[in-house]
Amino acid sequence: MKNFPIAKSRRLRSTPYTDRLEKQGVSAYTVYNHMLLPVSFVSAEADYHHLKEFVQVWDVAAERQVEISGKDSAELVQLMTCRDLSNSKIGKCYYAPLIDDHANIVNDPVINKLAEDRWWLSIADSDVIFFAKGLASGNKFEVKIKEPNVNILAIQGPLSNELMAKVFGEKITKLKFFNFDYFEFRGVKHFISRSGWSKQGGFEVYVENDKSGQELYDYLFEVGKEFNVKPGCPNIIERIESALLSYGNDFDNRDNPFEANFDKYINLESDVKFLGKDRLKKIKEEGVTRKLMGVQIEHDSIDMYCEKTLFDADNNIIGYVRSATYSPTFKKVIGIAMINKPYFNTSQLFKIEINEKLYEGKVCDLPFI
Amino acid sequence: MKNFPIAKSRRLRSTPYTDRLEKQGVSAYTVYNHMLLPVSFVSAEADYHHLKEFVQVWDVAAERQVEISGKDSAELVQLMTCRDLSNSKIGKCYYAPLIDDHANIVNDPVINKLAEDRWWLSIADSDVIFFAKGLASGNKFEVKIKEPNVNILAIQGPLSNELMAKVFGEKITKLKFFNFDYFEFRGVKHFISRSGWSKQGGFEVYVENDKSGQELYDYLFEVGKEFNVKPGCPNIIERIESALLSYGNDFDNRDNPFEANFDKYINLESDVKFLGKDRLKKIKEEGVTRKLMGVQIEHDSIDMYCEKTLFDADNNIIGYVRSATYSPTFKKVIGIAMINKPYFNTSQLFKIEINEKLYEGKVCDLPFI
Repeated sequence: MKNFPIAKSRRLRSTPYTDRLEKQGVSAYTVYNHMLLPVSFVSAEADYHHLKEFVQVWDVAAERQVEISGKDSAELVQLMTCRDLSNSKIGKCYYAPLIDDHANIVNDPVINKLAEDRWWLSIADSDVIFFAKGLASGNKFEVKIKEPNVNILAIQGPLSNELMAKVFGEKITKLKFFNFDYFEFRGVKHFISRSGWSKQGGFEVYVENDKSGQELYDYLFEVGKEFNVKPGCPNIIERIESALLSYGNDFDNRDNPFEANFDKYINLESDVKFLGKDRLKKIKEEGVTRKLMGVQIEHDSIDMYCEKTLFDADNNIIGYVRSATYSPTFKKVIGIAMINKPYFNTSQLFKIEINEKLYEGKVCDLPFI
Repeated sequence: MKNFPIAKSRRLRSTPYTDRLEKQGVSAYTVYNHMLLPVSFVSAEADYHHLKEFVQVWDVAAERQVEISGKDSAELVQLMTCRDLSNSKIGKCYYAPLIDDHANIVNDPVINKLAEDRWWLSIADSDVIFFAKGLASGNKFEVKIKEPNVNILAIQGPLSNELMAKVFGEKITKLKFFNFDYFEFRGVKHFISRSGWSKQGGFEVYVENDKSGQELYDYLFEVGKEFNVKPGCPNIIERIESALLSYGNDFDNRDNPFEANFDKYINLESDVKFLGKDRLKKIKEEGVTRKLMGVQIEHDSIDMYCEKTLFDADNNIIGYVRSATYSPTFKKVIGIAMINKPYFNTSQLFKIEINEKLYEGKVCDLPFI
């Protein structure tokens, strides 16, 4: 696939760390929430091996926050998600699909509960702020909605505990998965959660003070030498192997949360009020007609710039692969695909065209690892 | 400025014309409404000179449509904009700032009125669909909201009349500015407006049938040879000279429409109901504290990846330039800047740092041409 340069502008926002990444050799960008998000440094494969063995610092400022606060904030946040938040606790993070009136997915943020009346939705790539503003206005909710100046640094990889303990003290290693707390760096308090867009373990520092974030960035590399720290970013190989889904790639506003395998985040039994609830009950009753599955393809490369069609032996369309990459671990192409009923079972074989040649593949369960 | 490749994925949608552009030599992309938008072919300057003399075909599929239809559609569309649409007519296009409850700008679409109960909002780079869905849900409007499969081809430049007449017949040259009608190409009807993101004259074909659009694309180049037709795209030099504003670059959700000079699209006297109306009345009464102005800088190049600060002789901040480019016509850098009161007058001089050197500039009126 030919490379095309990205034309920078104010509209594709840089982050407080962009200058640093570029000195460190970032090699490609994507755009995510109208912001530059690095996608590789050395190469996807080299970055992948390093991430699985050591520790990386990621500029994921593109995970923007939507802050919802005020008297009716809990009601608004609940209205947007099919996950029951009625027993949610301050200091915890909740992965929660947001859906619209038709039960189609709007986003899949991590919702951080800062107070009973203050929430940060750490969003995937769609403008949740306007959904929230529309709902708040129409429902006459007493809320304040804004995008605060938060630019996340993620510290990911098996040595992230060691690196973070060196910077913030041993206490941080006690932080539980999907919990957050505040920790100090040179006199500045930072919101830090144990979370991140990899399955290699790690933390996310929700930096509110640009200057302190830049100092922290530099310090992480300074003291991280002994752990072989490197700059990194969400890695396509690692995220597909781990089945960390990507809004816009694997699912979007034409898909419902059952199709995206979000069953465990759909609470239809409780009496909380959220958009699309009746529609979800109907879908559950009728069963889905397609759903996300893994695919394995007997080939060593694939270019994904749109979904690709999968055919069975009789040339029936069985589904569409939406994200895929070569996996050095599986020594084949692996991907995430929306598979039609009745083909969504793990024995289903298919054919796929890649660069005008046909390759064999099979449907499998997610995650791969 | 170093070039960085864009990492393609399904999330950064290709268009039905992407393969064609890449064969024709597109040289850089931006991302707009989660879609690839070309930004140059030969170079911004070469494309600019060609656009001003001949005719170009543009893939502006990234100008996505939000279709709002149904009984309450007119009420919802009006609720989102400060422009009075109560006398709007079918077959006409309305440039209209969308604003939220706080009178901050959400988008600046062209609103096409297809029927009394069917509208296409041809949007700039933000997810208006979720704003509309939120408002519709909260207000219990009877509407249908969707993103139809429309992929616009723009035909722009002084010879666009001649080229379009050859394809669609003489009748199309009678179409008035910001009107639309339906015209046939090989048996397929196309919605065509006299509009476009340049001031060089032209048309936009709202292609609903991918295959017909691709055939039209090829045919435009076939019959356009005599007019020296070339592939093109919204051109930064032409658009800044003409002061065609860009959401995300020149203004965003932290700015109000008075600050963006949208005074003539703000109707506070009529009794139509729209969001932020009281707030706008207050802003009008108090006057704005900053507004968009032109700037001219005595230099021959500028890299814009975030806004740059402008200082007066006493080092007071007078404002921030948000978009800028070298203009071969003015033989200097020209730009669009948010200038603070009391500096927003055309005699104001300033200093700006570009690549660690200081340059002189002055504030001026918009547009430049």
